[in-house]
Order: sequence, then C-alpha cells, then structure tokens
Amino acid sequence: MRKVAESTVRRLSLYLRFLEEFEGQGIETVSSGALASRGGTTSAQVRKDLSFFGSFGKRGLGYPVPELADRLRDILGLKRRYRVGMIGAGKIGKHWNGLTVQDIATLEKELTRQPLDMAVLVVPADVAQAVADRLTALKVKAILNFAPVQLSVPPDVVVKTVNLALELETLSYALVNR
Amino acid sequence: MRKVAESTVRRLSLYLRFLEEFEGQGIETVSSGALASRGGTTSAQVRKDLSFFGSFGKRGLGYPVPELADRLRDILGLKRRYRVGMIGAGKIGKHWNGLTVQDIATLEKELTRQPLDMAVLVVPADVAQAVADRLTALKVKAILNFAPVQLSVPPDVVVKTVNLALELETLSYALVNR
Repeated sequence: MRKVAESTVRRLSLYLRFLEEFEGQGIETVSSGALASRGGTTSAQVRKDLSFFGSFGKRGLGYPVPELADRLRDILGLKRRYRVGMIGAGKIGKHWNGLTVQDIATLEKELTRQPLDMAVLVVPADVAQAVADRLTALKVKAILNFAPVQLSVPPDVVVKTVNLALELETLSYALVNR
Repeated sequence: MRKVAESTVRRLSLYLRFLEEFEGQGIETVSSGALASRGGTTSAQVRKDLSFFGSFGKRGLGYPVPELADRLRDILGLKRRYRVGMIGAGKIGKHWNGLTVQDIATLEKELTRQPLDMAVLVVPADVAQAVADRLTALKVKAILNFAPVQLSVPPDVVVKTVNLALELETLSYALVNR
C-alpha cells in the first residue's frame, strides 16, 4: 500500500463519522459532494482520498453507505479490538466504568501478564518521558500523549500528542489579534 | 500585523514552553538552534517565526530567555486574564477546584451577569451545535470543542476542535499499516 499522509487518514476518519450518521438515518447512498461539504473539503478531494484504497461506488450513483463505512472501518483498523490503558487516571483504588485504578508500581507486572496495544498518557510533563520509556520497554506501540512535552520513542512506536495548553493559546492568540 | 498561520502560532506556543523551562533552570540566553531542536524544527524556521514580531536577540549571542518569553506571552495574549467556562463538566452541584457545577438552564442568566471569554465544550455530539448557538448568542468569541462534530459559528467566533476519536483512529491506522 502507498504511504498515506496523516491528513488523509484524518479525513477518512471524519468521512466514517458522517457515514455512520447516514447509516443511522437509513440513507443508502451518498455523493462525494455530500461527504465533502460535511468534511469541509471538495468532492475531488473525497474521490482522491477514497481512490487510494480501491474503487468504491458507481459514477452518478454515489457511494453505497454501509459498504463504504465498512471498508473505512477496515482501512482504519477498527475491526480489531485494542487493549488500551490509561496512565495517570487518578487516585489508586478508585473504580471507573468497571475498572480499578492500579498503582503504577504494578505496571510491569500487569503489562507482562496482559500486554497493551495503546496507552493514553495523562501524567505531568516532568514524568511523561520516564513513563513512556517504561511503556515502550513493555512493547506498547501506540501512545496518545496529553503531557505538554515531545516524547522520544523508538522508531516503531507511534505517538500522537494532544496539547491542550497549546490549543487554548491559539484561541488566546485569535482573541487578541482579531 | 501580518496574518500569521496557525502553524506559526502553535510553534510560538511550543517555544514559550521551552523558554519557561529554561527560565526555571536559570538559563539566560538560548540559540535558535536549541529552540529548533526542542521544537522539532530548523533554526531558520525559528528565526523566521520570531522575525514576524520584530527583532529579538543579537547575532551570535542568542535570544535573551526572559525577554523573549515575555514577548511571546504578549504576542499570544497570555498577559490578559480570560474567563473560561466549561460546559458539560458533570453532575450538577458537584464541587471542583472551588467551583460548583451549575445547571445549564442557568447559562443565559450566569453569562449575562458575568460574560465568558472562552468556553470549553465537552457535551455529547448531538447537542453540541445547540449549546454552541447559545454560547455565541451570549457573545462567547472562542470555543474549544471536544464534541466530534464540526460546529457552525458566526465569522467573528474562533473554534478549535479536539477530536479524540480521530486521534485514536490515526493510532489504530498506524498500528495496522506498519
């Protein structure tokens, strides 16, 4: 498969969101124009994005909603189940959605017994790298990082950083520079 | 002031983070190269980003840390105080950091009495647009949106959407397409 830009993957994920809404409303076909207007892009971009992954739909008839949604779930890897762990979830022993917050001292024991596919990191900035090092040593290959630091990880590990201070600061900038 | 790309503003915010670390360590000057390596960019990019806002530093001596940090706080609008409200914060009446969660039925009354500069929207997707409409009618000009929908707002309102499902799906895509 060709290398696909992250911006394309993000749009596929948006298209899937809309297709799932259409599915819920019983809509059977959708045009590239309808997907484009919901996703804030052009119908040429939609056709290009989807053409990366084979041919869908028939000219003039639009895309079949359930089939395209299914194919996008396939492409995005959403038919697999992932074990996701959250690190920094709060007070040890607290129950949440049927889960119990464990002491981070047990991380190595727990992950050796039941490996994680993804980790969501919500720890303070000054310990984030140390925790990431422990996670990658335990073979975690994907990290969603909320700490305001750039993590160094081995090349086979993928990290996405969501920096809320930065999001708020772009809003602040917009407010003072209108 | 020239129009500045959002990607530039995001880098300024990152530089400020590093400068504040350096300030904490008592470091007085920093080179564009040091800022660049921390920010995952080039020293030419750092100099270009900072040149948008006037001249800083002396050739060969680097940037003065406290002055540059102060100037970036100024540029990013961080010397103002903002009233920020969170909508969808949980159970009504719950106390959190000295604040009490109010019924959303009181939104109009509360914001008329004490206007908000920014709102953080953490409500379900199907009500997000309706809440955004109420906020913009109450003169809120900046929204940080966590609902997985694209909000329609008047042109003088700035919205940043953080879509966690989408972040997790780009990780999922990376895991299945390595």
